[in-house]
Amino acid sequence: MKLPKSVTIKEVGPRDGLQNEKHLVATADKISWIDSLSRTGLSYIEASSFVHPKWIPQLADALEVLKGIKRNPSVTYASLVPNIKGLDRALESNVDEISVFMSASEGHNVRNINKSINETYPILGEVVKEAKMAGKTVRGYISTVIACPYDGPVAPAEVRKVADHLFNMGIDEISLGDTIGVAVPNQVECLLEELLPHFGPNRLAMHFHDTRGTALANIVKSLEMGITIFDSSLGGLGGCPYARGASGNVSTEDLLYMLHEMGINTGIDFNAIIKSAQYIERKLGKKLKSKQMEIKRAEGKESFS
Amino acid sequence: MKLPKSVTIKEVGPRDGLQNEKHLVATADKISWIDSLSRTGLSYIEASSFVHPKWIPQLADALEVLKGIKRNPSVTYASLVPNIKGLDRALESNVDEISVFMSASEGHNVRNINKSINETYPILGEVVKEAKMAGKTVRGYISTVIACPYDGPVAPAEVRKVADHLFNMGIDEISLGDTIGVAVPNQVECLLEELLPHFGPNRLAMHFHDTRGTALANIVKSLEMGITIFDSSLGGLGGCPYARGASGNVSTEDLLYMLHEMGINTGIDFNAIIKSAQYIERKLGKKLKSKQMEIKRAEGKESFS
Repeated sequence: MKLPKSVTIKEVGPRDGLQNEKHLVATADKISWIDSLSRTGLSYIEASSFVHPKWIPQLADALEVLKGIKRNPSVTYASLVPNIKGLDRALESNVDEISVFMSASEGHNVRNINKSINETYPILGEVVKEAKMAGKTVRGYISTVIACPYDGPVAPAEVRKVADHLFNMGIDEISLGDTIGVAVPNQVECLLEELLPHFGPNRLAMHFHDTRGTALANIVKSLEMGITIFDSSLGGLGGCPYARGASGNVSTEDLLYMLHEMGINTGIDFNAIIKSAQYIERKLGKKLKSKQMEIKRAEGKESFS
Repeated sequence: MKLPKSVTIKEVGPRDGLQNEKHLVATADKISWIDSLSRTGLSYIEASSFVHPKWIPQLADALEVLKGIKRNPSVTYASLVPNIKGLDRALESNVDEISVFMSASEGHNVRNINKSINETYPILGEVVKEAKMAGKTVRGYISTVIACPYDGPVAPAEVRKVADHLFNMGIDEISLGDTIGVAVPNQVECLLEELLPHFGPNRLAMHFHDTRGTALANIVKSLEMGITIFDSSLGGLGGCPYARGASGNVSTEDLLYMLHEMGINTGIDFNAIIKSAQYIERKLGKKLKSKQMEIKRAEGKESFS
């Protein structure tokens, strides 16, 4: 297998994870959690979102969280921003990187942003321009890159069109999201065969939800095609809003196990990640669903029996 | 991706699944369950085990189960057999195929069978000879093909040595088991690179436990290398005896989702498999852990809310 020597994991649990959890986590606990993540060797943490609290009450404290954390200079802290209003608050927080988002499918974009794809470009364009002027790097999320819960399968050419627009705005990196967690490896291959000749592997990240258990298989295919940036969340936090109860992002610790066992370097301390996952598990008051957390709980029970 | 057009799934839930469940399932319920599996399009069901009930009380009713089920002529019914005594009972049940088992590592073989690897060959050889004389096909399981809970990593050459012995006895097919569910795709590739030049892809099956979430990724790598036979169990039944609480075999329904979505034919009706999984879930009185069963439960809740 042709595999990269090292991979960058971008931890999206504090944003993509918590925004989909019913249970509200206290601001002080979020700060402690992000501080613990900052000590694991992670180089990137998406810390919160400046989407209006009406839509995402779980992250209404974005500003306090970003002002409260101890910044590790080796870590890039990012935050999601929907529009110029959100950007103003994000800049106030002095976050390192701004993330913007839209979908590759009309149906999802309209229901998520209340705008068509073409109406969304100028809104994001304004954010990107201002963020760049403020000296920030910008990440773009494209949702529903494989399939849309409203429109069905999404053609790779549609994803390329959106990616083209975003890169032309000056976006530094695009994260390709299988938002509803339906992808299988040959679909990922088709998508990347369309995108890689245009954009190369260094500006593309993959963002898999593990709703159907295929995330790690999709990551292996992406690795073989040259992708080296992957989004994940501790404990697989997140949950897919289109299949409630089913699991969310691919779990950071399960991804770490696989990458390390494959001989791929991440710079991340596996045990520190597990401790950080156990911390947020206690604060959420629910069992995290990753395989590694299940193993830890099973080992814990055995040591008492 | 180079992928096969069709794949054979061998359902091992009634044996490898139930033998690791604490909860005893009534004989009549096992019979109903296997009968429902026989109507899903599955072509192979490992129905029980003739290992001494002292070791596996869950399957003490192997003979009643095999005599009680309605045989579908399109299905091969198999049963595990440890020695000549077990074979006699298996032949009495008129099962179609006999499975024998041993490990690729001394540590696991000694603890599982109470014999060294070299001491095990003549015992299995006797079973194979008698089974063949009775007109049965014989399958051989090799456990710990990637790593052993006692001896650590297992060299592919060790697996090849054991496989060589088993094929020389006249065994028809070998199932390669990642018993403790630690494998990652490049390890699977190394193993198959050692075995395929000697034995070809048609007599080898892969048997992955999903303890660490890597089973589907390992199956994709196996598919790409030409393997077309995979063991799985409904609902991921099984549990790994070396990491209690963590999940067991790769789940049939999660595997089916991936294969069908990849355009690979299995001949199996996905919805019939889900119904059969829901049946055994009720009988076991515990939630099955597969992603597809989680999705079904989530959908069920939504339709009531």
